Amino acid sequence: MTHTGIYRSRSGTADSETSVGSGGGGGGGTTVMRVIVPLQGVVQGRGGLVLGSVIPCAFFYFLQFYLKRNRRDEPEPDPANQNFASSPGSEPNNLGSSSLTQSELTGLSRSLSRVSPRNSGGHVSVSVRANSLHKVGDSPYHVGVKRVEEDPYDESGNPEGIIELGLAQNRLSSDWVSDENTIGLSLSEIASYEPCDGLMELKMVVARLMSEATKNVVSFDPLQLVLTSGAASAIDILSFCLADSGNAFLVPTPCSPGFDVDVKWRNGVEIIHVPCRSSDNFNISVTALDRTFSQARKRGVRVRGIIISNPSNPMGSLLSREKLYAIFDFARERNIHIISNEIFAGSIHGDEEAEFISIAEIADTEENLDKERVHIVYDLSKDLSFPGLRAGAIYSFNENVIAASKKLTTLSPVSSPSQHLLISTISKPEFIQTYVKTNRQRLKRIYSEFVKGLKGLGIECTRSNGGLFCWADMRGFISSYSVKGEIELWNKFLNIGKINVIPGSCCHCIEPGWFRFCFSNLSEKDVLVVRNRIRKSLYNM
Amino acid sequence: MTHTGIYRSRSGTADSETSVGSGGGGGGGTTVMRVIVPLQGVVQGRGGLVLGSVIPCAFFYFLQFYLKRNRRDEPEPDPANQNFASSPGSEPNNLGSSSLTQSELTGLSRSLSRVSPRNSGGHVSVSVRANSLHKVGDSPYHVGVKRVEEDPYDESGNPEGIIELGLAQNRLSSDWVSDENTIGLSLSEIASYEPCDGLMELKMVVARLMSEATKNVVSFDPLQLVLTSGAASAIDILSFCLADSGNAFLVPTPCSPGFDVDVKWRNGVEIIHVPCRSSDNFNISVTALDRTFSQARKRGVRVRGIIISNPSNPMGSLLSREKLYAIFDFARERNIHIISNEIFAGSIHGDEEAEFISIAEIADTEENLDKERVHIVYDLSKDLSFPGLRAGAIYSFNENVIAASKKLTTLSPVSSPSQHLLISTISKPEFIQTYVKTNRQRLKRIYSEFVKGLKGLGIECTRSNGGLFCWADMRGFISSYSVKGEIELWNKFLNIGKINVIPGSCCHCIEPGWFRFCFSNLSEKDVLVVRNRIRKSLYNM
Repeated sequence: MTHTGIYRSRSGTADSETSVGSGGGGGGGTTVMRVIVPLQGVVQGRGGLVLGSVIPCAFFYFLQFYLKRNRRDEPEPDPANQNFASSPGSEPNNLGSSSLTQSELTGLSRSLSRVSPRNSGGHVSVSVRANSLHKVGDSPYHVGVKRVEEDPYDESGNPEGIIELGLAQNRLSSDWVSDENTIGLSLSEIASYEPCDGLMELKMVVARLMSEATKNVVSFDPLQLVLTSGAASAIDILSFCLADSGNAFLVPTPCSPGFDVDVKWRNGVEIIHVPCRSSDNFNISVTALDRTFSQARKRGVRVRGIIISNPSNPMGSLLSREKLYAIFDFARERNIHIISNEIFAGSIHGDEEAEFISIAEIADTEENLDKERVHIVYDLSKDLSFPGLRAGAIYSFNENVIAASKKLTTLSPVSSPSQHLLISTISKPEFIQTYVKTNRQRLKRIYSEFVKGLKGLGIECTRSNGGLFCWADMRGFISSYSVKGEIELWNKFLNIGKINVIPGSCCHCIEPGWFRFCFSNLSEKDVLVVRNRIRKSLYNM
Repeated sequence: MTHTGIYRSRSGTADSETSVGSGGGGGGGTTVMRVIVPLQGVVQGRGGLVLGSVIPCAFFYFLQFYLKRNRRDEPEPDPANQNFASSPGSEPNNLGSSSLTQSELTGLSRSLSRVSPRNSGGHVSVSVRANSLHKVGDSPYHVGVKRVEEDPYDESGNPEGIIELGLAQNRLSSDWVSDENTIGLSLSEIASYEPCDGLMELKMVVARLMSEATKNVVSFDPLQLVLTSGAASAIDILSFCLADSGNAFLVPTPCSPGFDVDVKWRNGVEIIHVPCRSSDNFNISVTALDRTFSQARKRGVRVRGIIISNPSNPMGSLLSREKLYAIFDFARERNIHIISNEIFAGSIHGDEEAEFISIAEIADTEENLDKERVHIVYDLSKDLSFPGLRAGAIYSFNENVIAASKKLTTLSPVSSPSQHLLISTISKPEFIQTYVKTNRQRLKRIYSEFVKGLKGLGIECTRSNGGLFCWADMRGFISSYSVKGEIELWNKFLNIGKINVIPGSCCHCIEPGWFRFCFSNLSEKDVLVVRNRIRKSLYNM
């Protein structure tokens, strides 16, 4: 009660300052109070309720505005950098291409040391986004690829060079396609303006190719296809269309190392990893997805979709019909999108019972409204051994997404030469069936050779039925059960064994010691060379 | 004083609600007051100053938060749409491809009618950004191009079809290049992974080509080049790197209709137009630039750069050395970037005194710190008559921008076939000199024929020295001096004359009645056909 009285007298005093000549105050207010509580005075004045609320709000608003403006020049911390910038993999002394990381960091500090904007000679700042991107330390994934570029293995020309087992590339069938196909295109034929989202003629053969991968269980509609300058660009465009900056996608891990680039870089969309574990054979758990979704929502993060890879990358496992239905039901329940990354759909190499089931098959059994959440990413380069063509595809059941994606292909179109080369290659009679069959046989043979070779060195792989990778358990070979231990072994592979592989941490695997080997870069002869190099890296002999 | 008393008694009453059993209140407060002014009561309580400020702020904060969350599902109004969505050009009845606009609008309303996110069967929403993009009504620019696709003119096959005078395309020399070059590439040669930002071999020939356009006054360094999947993609990437969402670029108008797409769509960067006028021969005024900059700053908009086109698009005028220095000084003074769009640098067709001066020449005379604000966009497709190759370039003096741009090319790479076709074409001895010379002669001849033809119909053009366009003054032919009048005439051209041209409003010209004609799509024979079609559109005879 005393307190109440004091406060009231303060209010009264302050009030008398605003309403001049007021005699109704409680009196006894001190000068100090007059200074420190002007706001209270206003509250007591005419329109107290309104002003008492509006004025603090206005102050608060402008404070927010001021802080926001002043924050703009500072680069935001970039989550894509979290994993590797601090990992041993990007420390200068550990890596061959360390100078690059160094210069990038130097570049960053320069651009931040912006001088007065008024005088000439000051640094002109680049965007916060570019600075964030610039800061992204090169992960082992990128470092390895660069090292191979600098010093590529060649049996006769550079036998001591680095063998590429990291980059997802299938060289097993490119010679076959080349032998079977000659290019009979004139420059003027391939160099005119064409629709950025792809010629209908090409879409029709792509739809056929996708159907063939499902053994013609699914019939794909060319009108739902949008062609892009590669699968990375397809995921980038879908991220733009399905989520706003600050929203998130759920991604079961281990996952493709490329998602960090495709989802985050341009769009500022976050990835929330949902770890799968070796004890569960790296299976996707819908319970874990749902739990992660709920946790994200509690944190105020809006989850807009889930990205799955089928066949999975890096494990090469196939999602069963039941699992796909469970994922679909989860997505429907939470009203989110599904991006199904099916870029290796044409590269199934498992036994007869290994069956690739496209999410499109599930969508086809659903109502139109529910289909709309389903989007497929396909890559013409991967399955056809032609990554250089830079031709990917979005297949969507959502009209709005198709329309927006088509517009965005203006900024990442598939080139005319690639389109015509693909049309002339794929549309040949019998090509698709024969190619898919030949490719499967070759993948199967090399995969089994490669796994046998690893087994002989005491390395087990998870069972793979599709795609271009072995997912090898090397937990017994790392010096400490940590990312550090894993990167140390990766460094040995790169610098002692001279092979480039992908450490599991690049795939966001939470268990250290797993490695991804892309076997489809190799001929049968190469397998032996690689085996010896792995032995050298592991046993130093 | 009476008012003051009332307020104080209210406060007292309310206060007594929070401090239970308070007998010190002023008494006489009504029940209504107890309900409506609880906030005031709190202010009077313990910690009045703090609570009185914090509580309204908290309410305000959560109100903002609530509004923001609820706004997310609604598409934001898109500024790129402002000009044309409401212009007659996009009204269903005026345009041939009206059904498209209609279906887009239908699609939009569907995605907005989102049902409960908990139940199955609800619409899954796409991103706000995609919805904004989706809403962008097709401008006459896009509508015209589509109409030509549907019904293209062919002298013998479709003589009543639409003649393309809108799309920036140079067909004058493509036959020459085709005759001179055969493609001797094997599929395996062009289909492997290659650097997304371009092969060094290609960068070297591109640098030579760019130098040739400056008559070798400037020597371009291949290390400062980043190749992209077209000039649109180059501007898109530069916009990402130089400005954040909500920042702006100054763009003198009339300007290329493509900037709206390239700058805004993905990046959310704004364009502030700085109008040039016919009375001033559409010259860029640095005073106007500076005034617009100041006005933008007063509005709280951060201007990050200026985009100029040299040769200008649509006028085809060349920027003098003095003007370039003045623009450079302005950019230095304001510490902003310069993007110089030089995609027609190799297409100068004016008299001997018409001299193309690259901004690189100006930058080369400046200190390193100041050079960093200069970025050039180049297009291998435009100057070489091969738009389908989808090969553009960024040439930057800023290391950070080069580094970030290289990373972003992962998402819009130039394809391997395009790279190899360009290398094999451009690197032939003498090709560059001979090509540039031949191309200039052909452009000059058709330009002069075309302008003469227009003159015969009473149409004057501004003087053009470079690029592929005539900028024609048709103010005397529009029914009303407004965008509406201009679009009416454009419709006549498209539907009566069957020619596709670009109305000045697409180039953001503030004076209605100007039109852009791309003459380089025509052979000499075509010029007469076009002249007759223009006459038919204008005089109905």
